[in-house]
Amino acid sequence: MADCFKRIGIIGKYADTTVGETLHALRDYLQSREVELLLDEATGDIWPEHGLETACRDALGRRCDLIIVVGGDGTFLNAARSLAIHDPALLGINLGRLGFLTDISPSEMSERLDEILSGRYSEDERFLLHCRIFRDGEVISESDAFNDVVVHKWDVARMIEVDTYVNGTYVNTLRSDGLIVSTPTGSTAYALSGGGPILQPCLNAVILVPICPHTMSNRPIVVDADTVIEIMVKGQEQSHAQVSCDGQINLGLVAGDRIQIRKKEHTVRLIHPDEHDHFQILRAKLNWG
Amino acid sequence: MADCFKRIGIIGKYADTTVGETLHALRDYLQSREVELLLDEATGDIWPEHGLETACRDALGRRCDLIIVVGGDGTFLNAARSLAIHDPALLGINLGRLGFLTDISPSEMSERLDEILSGRYSEDERFLLHCRIFRDGEVISESDAFNDVVVHKWDVARMIEVDTYVNGTYVNTLRSDGLIVSTPTGSTAYALSGGGPILQPCLNAVILVPICPHTMSNRPIVVDADTVIEIMVKGQEQSHAQVSCDGQINLGLVAGDRIQIRKKEHTVRLIHPDEHDHFQILRAKLNWG
Amino acid sequence: MADCFKRIGIIGKYADTTVGETLHALRDYLQSREVELLLDEATGDIWPEHGLETACRDALGRRCDLIIVVGGDGTFLNAARSLAIHDPALLGINLGRLGFLTDISPSEMSERLDEILSGRYSEDERFLLHCRIFRDGEVISESDAFNDVVVHKWDVARMIEVDTYVNGTYVNTLRSDGLIVSTPTGSTAYALSGGGPILQPCLNAVILVPICPHTMSNRPIVVDADTVIEIMVKGQEQSHAQVSCDGQINLGLVAGDRIQIRKKEHTVRLIHPDEHDHFQILRAKLNWG
Amino acid sequence: MADCFKRIGIIGKYADTTVGETLHALRDYLQSREVELLLDEATGDIWPEHGLETACRDALGRRCDLIIVVGGDGTFLNAARSLAIHDPALLGINLGRLGFLTDISPSEMSERLDEILSGRYSEDERFLLHCRIFRDGEVISESDAFNDVVVHKWDVARMIEVDTYVNGTYVNTLRSDGLIVSTPTGSTAYALSGGGPILQPCLNAVILVPICPHTMSNRPIVVDADTVIEIMVKGQEQSHAQVSCDGQINLGLVAGDRIQIRKKEHTVRLIHPDEHDHFQILRAKLNWG
Repeated sequence: MADCFKRIGIIGKYADTTVGETLHALRDYLQSREVELLLDEATGDIWPEHGLETACRDALGRRCDLIIVVGGDGTFLNAARSLAIHDPALLGINLGRLGFLTDISPSEMSERLDEILSGRYSEDERFLLHCRIFRDGEVISESDAFNDVVVHKWDVARMIEVDTYVNGTYVNTLRSDGLIVSTPTGSTAYALSGGGPILQPCLNAVILVPICPHTMSNRPIVVDADTVIEIMVKGQEQSHAQVSCDGQINLGLVAGDRIQIRKKEHTVRLIHPDEHDHFQILRAKLNWG
Repeated sequence: MADCFKRIGIIGKYADTTVGETLHALRDYLQSREVELLLDEATGDIWPEHGLETACRDALGRRCDLIIVVGGDGTFLNAARSLAIHDPALLGINLGRLGFLTDISPSEMSERLDEILSGRYSEDERFLLHCRIFRDGEVISESDAFNDVVVHKWDVARMIEVDTYVNGTYVNTLRSDGLIVSTPTGSTAYALSGGGPILQPCLNAVILVPICPHTMSNRPIVVDADTVIEIMVKGQEQSHAQVSCDGQINLGLVAGDRIQIRKKEHTVRLIHPDEHDHFQILRAKLNWG
Repeated sequence: MADCFKRIGIIGKYADTTVGETLHALRDYLQSREVELLLDEATGDIWPEHGLETACRDALGRRCDLIIVVGGDGTFLNAARSLAIHDPALLGINLGRLGFLTDISPSEMSERLDEILSGRYSEDERFLLHCRIFRDGEVISESDAFNDVVVHKWDVARMIEVDTYVNGTYVNTLRSDGLIVSTPTGSTAYALSGGGPILQPCLNAVILVPICPHTMSNRPIVVDADTVIEIMVKGQEQSHAQVSCDGQINLGLVAGDRIQIRKKEHTVRLIHPDEHDHFQILRAKLNWG
Repeated sequence: MADCFKRIGIIGKYADTTVGETLHALRDYLQSREVELLLDEATGDIWPEHGLETACRDALGRRCDLIIVVGGDGTFLNAARSLAIHDPALLGINLGRLGFLTDISPSEMSERLDEILSGRYSEDERFLLHCRIFRDGEVISESDAFNDVVVHKWDVARMIEVDTYVNGTYVNTLRSDGLIVSTPTGSTAYALSGGGPILQPCLNAVILVPICPHTMSNRPIVVDADTVIEIMVKGQEQSHAQVSCDGQINLGLVAGDRIQIRKKEHTVRLIHPDEHDHFQILRAKLNWG
């Protein structure tokens, strides 16, 4: 695997000036390794003294072998969605606080990158969800999610009611605060707060987690990721539901809307040092033991 | 206890024309019992042919020994809050679907009222919560709740952060979708969906139930109802939190707001037939056994 | 698919005389369809007037195209384990109470079998777990499970402590009442009571559900069914743990024992009428909606 | 409150030689304060060089104003039960690991005791449960519990079925691994692992927590501590249930046995330094924030 990463892109946390120091150190390190560097345009705007060639997100995806994301899991989610169409290799560096996706800390950055650039790395393929909203038979919007698609109430004081279908088969009618449809990647994020299980990252499965369901036997359901999940928004005159992808993109819904969720064709490869251990991150983040 | 109920008020479900038949039967029954009747003004508006004296909610509370609420639990919650200042005796008649508060069905109405009007009834005292919102040291709004006061996120895609104090002692900092502060009455409503325990109605206790907490060890906490609970809304520039009472009254919050919750002085007495059994209602509503 | 089922085996619920009427009706029906019948030996013992050829469990598996199990889910679990080595086709008929595995009721038996014997059926492949216990490097016992392998405390008043490994990678150290390792089939049984998610039956996944864990962030974990799961029993001098398969086979454990669980090579095919709908059974059994 | 504690008893963790150093330091400190000391007999057996007057548990309770327990929460539970009849004042010193009941660490011991012996302390009254088992109308055994009374399955692979009554009123029939009846003190122990809420220590309430209930709507119930709780063991021929108090006393049950649980008349007073804060202990023990 050695020598794969010749052209490396860099994306920094949006609108966060504290990211500068780590970006600086990363640039210096990578320049010493004689790889070609491309900087995300928006990151360049908040880091004037970068001295690097910049490129739009799409060019970054087309031209780079590896894209390094510096920031928190939110930055990584954004990068994964915007680059997914290029089936990118992504690496996450945090800003001091361990993330599930940004699991390399600034202090160990050069040591870990030494290993990875020497070919001692593992790849961890992750899928995204593609979500389309149908109104009166037409797609009115669509979006990707790396963690989760969440259909939730908007008027905070009232439950919503949705019908769920898996591959066209009716599952149930749910009265609740909402429904989370999560990838294995998202299983340690909002779905976990909602009472969902943790999914091994490699699983080809999706979890449906009801949020504060009115009926207590409405429990998380794990289904094959190759099924098509459809959620119909019920209710009378006016709607009070919304759909959000990774908690970052929000769309209003009206009664009768159908949210169709399926696995996106393109995937993302997470690049990790060889000794990477997902369970070690779980133990650290969840205070196990 | 016989002969207590000489003047009886009637409140019907708001803006629901299906309530007419039950109201009609109730009026006829009560007229046959020769008690004095007063009809809630707003109910009179949707039931033109009532032929009864009407009164505003406040007069109803002042003048009646007993107020009969016809509708669902939502109608009852509204009645309890609006009448609480009069320490009223309330009786709930449902429209065919058993409620925790409206536990008498139309079909058994006259039989149960026979018993109650003959003095064969029990009283079940329930307390309300009084909630005041402080901004910059001033009370900017206040409201009562019979089920629960809920502080929740408003921008659905982001958690809120609140600090909770009990009698001035710091409890914890919670990152979650919200926090439910519930009476025993409300313990079978939203608090139950959020994972809270069921409280025996007579308990002088309040439950704090975190909604989808980020930290899994943030569990429901039951505290004495005579404590003062304070919730401080944290966050930076702008707020995305809201407070709602019984899911019926909503108020926007900004960072720095303090929500103070204490037991209301006035209480409500639920009137039940002698053989009333709260656990039987629980078994029926929760599909036990 | 027509004409597949020429030789059909019958197994009845063990030591239950109420099964006789359904067995009788089933025999008469199948004889009218002119298929060859074989009766499970043990079933023959409790149904003297059967008039059929009997065979041991192993011969049943070898000789039959289809084996019909009459009883509850417990009877079916036993049949699945004892026949698994033959990759059997199994059909479950209940005794009046809907089961997840015995989903055909006596009253619809002949109608459903008409469909199935005419080739209008679907197959639903399910895997089993194979569990081996190692002590001092030797296998001291092994067993199969169709629902779950459970490692649990034996001295009821003390927690047990186990280390879990997935494909040789350390997952965590768990202090709890026990650990359930469940197939998708078992996800609606004990694992559900323990707080686990529901798995779509076709998923190639296994759930690890901690029972009353001491640390609240020890949550259910879903892993690929092709991984090897190992559970090490910790503790000092003497043991107070036990392992059980489907709640039917129990083995004592001592500290240092290693329980290795992997997917069994052989599978079981559940035969259903064409219109079979797993979610419909879930809705009925879990009181959804 | 000054000068209350003239005669102080000392109890050390049973059969644990590591307790010696802390006992030694405690004795030296208390001798310097010129209070009269009495040592628990059993503790004297494992600490030969103590040089103190010893007394049986009962004499300790009769003669001392304050009893200091050195060990973990288990030691404290045992002390509370054995001394309860004397309505003792108890103080817990841990061996380095913070306990809910033994919340003073050895390193701060003399500083805290300075405060307490000078009268700067608070009292925190806690109640116990008294549990009696009736068979064929006779009490066959009885016991106290400071944390919880647990009725649980004994044959680990089968559920038990119990009927619960509160003040003679039928609550429900529960099929589960067991039922925990917990005091507020016990609400942070086994009841919490079972999914129960945290109760403020001063609450006069008891929680009923079902363990892995078969029906998911069987949720924790909080009832007034002055009610009588009765649990009837159901089942056919032979029993597979057991009752345990604080996880330390175990009694076998047979079908038909009735477990009656009520608040014990006598209480225990926990002595804390003035600045004691129960929520601080919760935050530390539960990793909040």
